[in-house]
Amino acid sequence: MKSDLEAYLRVARYRVDRALDAWLPGKGDAPGSIHEAMRYCVFAGGKMLRPVLCLAASDACGGARELAVPAACAVELMHTYSLVHDDLPCMDDDDLRRGRATCHKVYGEGMAVLCGDALLTEAFAVLAKAEGTERYGVGEMVAELALTGGSRRLIGGQVLDLEGEGKRLSLEELVKIHEAKTAALLACSVRLGGMSANATREELEALTVFGNSLGLAFQVIDDILDVTQTTEKLGKTAGKDAAVEKATYPAVMGLEESRKEAVRLTGVALDALAIFGEKGTGLREIAEWMLVRDY
Amino acid sequence: MKSDLEAYLRVARYRVDRALDAWLPGKGDAPGSIHEAMRYCVFAGGKMLRPVLCLAASDACGGARELAVPAACAVELMHTYSLVHDDLPCMDDDDLRRGRATCHKVYGEGMAVLCGDALLTEAFAVLAKAEGTERYGVGEMVAELALTGGSRRLIGGQVLDLEGEGKRLSLEELVKIHEAKTAALLACSVRLGGMSANATREELEALTVFGNSLGLAFQVIDDILDVTQTTEKLGKTAGKDAAVEKATYPAVMGLEESRKEAVRLTGVALDALAIFGEKGTGLREIAEWMLVRDY
Repeated sequence: MKSDLEAYLRVARYRVDRALDAWLPGKGDAPGSIHEAMRYCVFAGGKMLRPVLCLAASDACGGARELAVPAACAVELMHTYSLVHDDLPCMDDDDLRRGRATCHKVYGEGMAVLCGDALLTEAFAVLAKAEGTERYGVGEMVAELALTGGSRRLIGGQVLDLEGEGKRLSLEELVKIHEAKTAALLACSVRLGGMSANATREELEALTVFGNSLGLAFQVIDDILDVTQTTEKLGKTAGKDAAVEKATYPAVMGLEESRKEAVRLTGVALDALAIFGEKGTGLREIAEWMLVRDY
Repeated sequence: MKSDLEAYLRVARYRVDRALDAWLPGKGDAPGSIHEAMRYCVFAGGKMLRPVLCLAASDACGGARELAVPAACAVELMHTYSLVHDDLPCMDDDDLRRGRATCHKVYGEGMAVLCGDALLTEAFAVLAKAEGTERYGVGEMVAELALTGGSRRLIGGQVLDLEGEGKRLSLEELVKIHEAKTAALLACSVRLGGMSANATREELEALTVFGNSLGLAFQVIDDILDVTQTTEKLGKTAGKDAAVEKATYPAVMGLEESRKEAVRLTGVALDALAIFGEKGTGLREIAEWMLVRDY
């Protein structure tokens, strides 16, 4: 990773981390058990990709970063809730996440359901504190997050994923799942960052193309890493997809073609950044790094 | 029930029912399975007490009902999601709700978790469409719903409830659970109705007292009905509280004292309506009916 990108990521993560820490109730707030569980899940050393993309999109549109922080916190909370619920025994049944025991392994299933519910609710609570801009009211931003998190996108993708286990899916079906489950929230992250910066409709459209394409590339790479990396490196159970016969890019199009597809999708994402010029540097470098990441 | 109250309730329920039907994705929207599950849970012939109270609070503040419909839909969706998750095997493990099989009994546990998640998300989606008024922006209304649904109130109450099972709770502890788990959402329902009607701060304060006190009364009566009514009448498993040694008002203060407490709390709620004069008739009659309800 380039050292200037490393600094960029560190600064952005620190900012979101600090904001989440200030926002979330402490272990001292009653009931302490759920606040402990929420913090266990949120402060687990994740990549914080979505909030960083949100802030970088604000940069690309020339916004003041501070105004994008509520949206950045919101997308990270929504992502974390979705992991907590997806990991439940009645869903993907995973024991390991971000290098440690999943929420329900530590706090029990009932608490993990409630913890996910609370993180989802906090996503909207923190976003409601956004100021809104000339072009975008806070209601529009909340509607954007809710549409993304809802039954046609994020949750719908998990439904398709559950229903697709053990079945042979076509490439088209696989793309549909990943668009809903992964790409939608990445696109939402950059769109909310752009909206916080009062982006023009043209800029917002460019961010949408960028986010959707990068999101698909991200998932292709995730699928590749699942078969090429170790559990230790990934911080989650490697080889899981094949074990439960889940459709993945390598399974559908082979490893080599999957790598080419990730490069192609990243190219589409990078092309969409043209209109931002120099201000798009943060988004560009993150996209390039995501292509070569190994965890 | 007085016949004019019956008509009042019928009109209000019809309005919310129609709005929810128009709002929620249909079974034809992909993925159809989750949309079927969501509709199964929402259109189950519940009392729709919260949305009706929301509309009645708008009436009390002289608002145009149409403006309170998004808030009314939002509180019903939040209530329904909380029932779906509370009924899960890892929580209260209930088979029966609103007179029929619970969501997870029909659609499986994984789908029930996702269905609850989707209903919660839709609550914010529909509320984001509220117009906001001179005194209250839509951001403030979303923040209100998120605070109510969050880990310090609705979810926090369920946590305390889970942690309290099989323990001897003091009256004070019991009140704390019911304030968080039941009263908060009733208070939120009337507050959002008031906010939709551009209520004054004084009117909003009166609605808060009304909602909190009525919410506690509601829970006392629920506890009484659990020991005095049949499963058939309630549409949910009667005698459940005693079976799992859950602390209830009758268990803590006896049946007769519980009845007196319900009357007292309802009195406090009714007194708070004084400032609304004639316009408070809807809220007043609903509160009186709730005291004598037998389901």
